[in-house]
Amino acid sequence: MDKIRVAVVGYGNIGKFALEAVETAPDMECAGIVSRNPEALETRAVLNYRIVSDIRDLGKVDVAILATPSRKVEENALKYLSMGINTVDSFDIHGGICALRQTLGKCAGRNNAVSIISAGWDPGSDSVVRALLRALAPEGVTYTNFGPGRSMGHSVAAKAIPGVREALSLTIPEGKGVHSRRVYIELEEGADFDTVAAAIKADPYFASDVTTVEAVPSVEAINSLMHGVDLVRNGVSGKTPGQDLEFKMRINNPALTGQVLVCAARAAMRQKAGCYTLIEIPVIDFLPGDREQLIRELV
Amino acid sequence: MDKIRVAVVGYGNIGKFALEAVETAPDMECAGIVSRNPEALETRAVLNYRIVSDIRDLGKVDVAILATPSRKVEENALKYLSMGINTVDSFDIHGGICALRQTLGKCAGRNNAVSIISAGWDPGSDSVVRALLRALAPEGVTYTNFGPGRSMGHSVAAKAIPGVREALSLTIPEGKGVHSRRVYIELEEGADFDTVAAAIKADPYFASDVTTVEAVPSVEAINSLMHGVDLVRNGVSGKTPGQDLEFKMRINNPALTGQVLVCAARAAMRQKAGCYTLIEIPVIDFLPGDREQLIRELV
Repeated sequence: MDKIRVAVVGYGNIGKFALEAVETAPDMECAGIVSRNPEALETRAVLNYRIVSDIRDLGKVDVAILATPSRKVEENALKYLSMGINTVDSFDIHGGICALRQTLGKCAGRNNAVSIISAGWDPGSDSVVRALLRALAPEGVTYTNFGPGRSMGHSVAAKAIPGVREALSLTIPEGKGVHSRRVYIELEEGADFDTVAAAIKADPYFASDVTTVEAVPSVEAINSLMHGVDLVRNGVSGKTPGQDLEFKMRINNPALTGQVLVCAARAAMRQKAGCYTLIEIPVIDFLPGDREQLIRELV
Repeated sequence: MDKIRVAVVGYGNIGKFALEAVETAPDMECAGIVSRNPEALETRAVLNYRIVSDIRDLGKVDVAILATPSRKVEENALKYLSMGINTVDSFDIHGGICALRQTLGKCAGRNNAVSIISAGWDPGSDSVVRALLRALAPEGVTYTNFGPGRSMGHSVAAKAIPGVREALSLTIPEGKGVHSRRVYIELEEGADFDTVAAAIKADPYFASDVTTVEAVPSVEAINSLMHGVDLVRNGVSGKTPGQDLEFKMRINNPALTGQVLVCAARAAMRQKAGCYTLIEIPVIDFLPGDREQLIRELV
């Protein structure tokens, strides 16, 4: 059987781990890397792949994994879908998912292609778990507790505060879906710690959470790729209350995102034209191998 | 929108809870109960529904929930599928699932109907979780730890031993997928405890597990509908080991089974003709309501 030819678009943190997941997938091969600046990339890592700025230079590509920032997803996805290339991404702006699904769905339909969006771990695999927990206990409450782990969005917001050279914001779960923030900063020379700390705590990203700020010589020393989630649902099945369900992970964050993107890339080959979130896809479609064998092993 | 008309076939433990789940489903109505012995049933419970021995007496039925023993599933499903009625069941003989799927799939295809099999919690919703965990960490090991809770199969096996009037076998999780058995028995008059206990421990159902046997005046006093599972996967995402994932439940056993059957009944209305296990169905299809709204809330 022909292997699925996958291009990795963007070779940052997520792209690197997505490539590793492609390399370990028995049914895939990497068609190459797409980068805005291929020359810079070639010096950065020893790669066995073609590195191009235009995906058309990679020959046949079945799926493009968009390992680019969320706000670049729509533009990139529309470009590749218009070429008839399936796309997958880990778009993580919760409020924008339905609009993105509509926009990409129309383009995918017109070009007989498939787009799978928000295919990271949250949104992504956690979404599948949340939907399943809702099905198992339709009345009830779900708590999504993140961390401890680094929040990209909060780290960027803290770094944007004047006087901050570098920042790392840890998300600390306090239970029942409540989180506190621990922000580590490197101060710029001459910056006043109290002024900077107050500005961070007043920022909309932090204003509603208990936030502590600490100046450190190097945030890199604190950095870790580990993250986690504890998804809890207390609910009612039929008319019976007291159903307690829980999903927990402690994981390397970009490695899991890369793996989910690769599972979505496989699933993209198995759907009808259109745009999908993970909860709209049969879980078996994420897996390689013979379907009967998978049913025998997993059901 | 027309409500999905559901018949509950069999009104034992599972049937009772399945009916409650139908009653709480906003998009369903109960068409009636099918029982081999309708007269006996009518005296047993105050029911607002028609109780019949032939499903054709219930008018239009979209889905039949087969709340009958696993070994009756094939016969019943073939009967209803031949009438063009969709079926769902909680068939739980792991080794027989693929064969059942083949047999029912052919019949469903010929009659433009849908059958969803093994739609309990294990096999069933746990299968969806196992498949998802495999997708997230393709290399690794999964442990399914059941209990503590009553095992139907082991209880029946213990009751079949000469000298046993009634039996209840608890499954105790010892970790890493290993279980021990605690068997409570009511002895028949004149039976020798040591002989009976030895026979239970030698039975194939118990021979490979650490089993303790205790004589009690009444097993009913020990009975509980609570059960649980702790599904653990330690694995590798891409090339990154150390990914730890876990799914835990503490639940009323027949209530959850009844709820999963109702979710499957809904999903049956949304699939093409054929036979499916839960891992072959998008999780969103288990849920009532507007799809965009579900995506907004859950993804």
